[in-house]
Amino acid sequence: MDKDINSIDILAKLADVIQQRKNADPNSSYVASLYARGLDKIVQKVGEEAVETVIAGKNGDHDALVSEVADLWFHSLVLLGHYDISPQHILDELAGRFGLSGLEEKASR
Amino acid sequence: MDKDINSIDILAKLADVIQQRKNADPNSSYVASLYARGLDKIVQKVGEEAVETVIAGKNGDHDALVSEVADLWFHSLVLLGHYDISPQHILDELAGRFGLSGLEEKASR
Amino acid sequence: MDKDINSIDILAKLADVIQQRKNADPNSSYVASLYARGLDKIVQKVGEEAVETVIAGKNGDHDALVSEVADLWFHSLVLLGHYDISPQHILDELAGRFGLSGLEEKASR
Amino acid sequence: MDKDINSIDILAKLADVIQQRKNADPNSSYVASLYARGLDKIVQKVGEEAVETVIAGKNGDHDALVSEVADLWFHSLVLLGHYDISPQHILDELAGRFGLSGLEEKASR
Repeated sequence: MDKDINSIDILAKLADVIQQRKNADPNSSYVASLYARGLDKIVQKVGEEAVETVIAGKNGDHDALVSEVADLWFHSLVLLGHYDISPQHILDELAGRFGLSGLEEKASR
Repeated sequence: MDKDINSIDILAKLADVIQQRKNADPNSSYVASLYARGLDKIVQKVGEEAVETVIAGKNGDHDALVSEVADLWFHSLVLLGHYDISPQHILDELAGRFGLSGLEEKASR
Repeated sequence: MDKDINSIDILAKLADVIQQRKNADPNSSYVASLYARGLDKIVQKVGEEAVETVIAGKNGDHDALVSEVADLWFHSLVLLGHYDISPQHILDELAGRFGLSGLEEKASR
Repeated sequence: MDKDINSIDILAKLADVIQQRKNADPNSSYVASLYARGLDKIVQKVGEEAVETVIAGKNGDHDALVSEVADLWFHSLVLLGHYDISPQHILDELAGRFGLSGLEEKASR
């Protein structure tokens, strides 16, 4: 359970880190440099990491796949951050689709 | 905080649901049909949802963007599930990169 | 040589066909339906066909690869047609980059 | 007509140039360096150029779009070259689909 609590902290904290770096000096961090280069560069990175995920998925190398999916989710978070959208909205959307909302979840335990 | 705990439950539970449907009748669920069609179809869907995320990202429609990123993450989970890789590995990878591990996290509270 | 002359006719004629269908009844042809659905659908198809090209490229199935690259080039032509850009501009761009302009070409025969 | 003959020469000559550089010193040319890095890098570039084409397509900047489609077609040719597939096969495939074969073409003039 501790592990799970920390895990969600990771997504939320990562979104926080991204927000903090949004207006930082572009030379100070990769996130700041992405925001300085603008929306086109951010969506380009999302697309590129997806291509690398497809290739890693075909190759079946677990370490490479974990690394590429992490890249893909990270750049998704940067894109969401561009519009000040919290990752919580993605989780809520997924929960809604699959009937995994908190209430239902507790009921089904 | 309750909300956050539920959120990680959602990712973990979604991965569980995906695993349960892995060997189900392809007609019984979308996830089962994806696994029945095989790896090529799964990576194709990851790529396609990324393209739609890029387009939604360019358009700046928040609802569409949330929906497409949810699609992208969901199909990423299906791809991870193909190799029996837990989403926890992605979160751990992201935590490691950004110095957001549990220990450090508690220290920084 | 006859074959080559016909080949360029194919690209130019295909662009002509696409232009003719641009304002046709969406139910009358696939090209007309793409234009009726608009730019987002057209760029989405370009992205999707690229994903399928990547997968076919990994698989090394020659027939599938030819089919997917044909799909990719075709949808590129539809995208160019959206902006009334002739495929000749692409060929000129490639010729310019690789020093294959007509003049040089004639000199090298 | 001269223009058309030169144009097809461009695609065929570009494929020839790519073949010639296939086994060259990776430091001698970009094409040689792509082949030295292998299939994964080649399909990755096809995917990446498609992402840039999607973005240029959304932006509607004609010069950028011509440049990106040229990149996309060029890397498609490198991928075809990996399997020793001539671009003529793509043109034949497109001609067959759209009833633009040489015979029909001559009849329709």
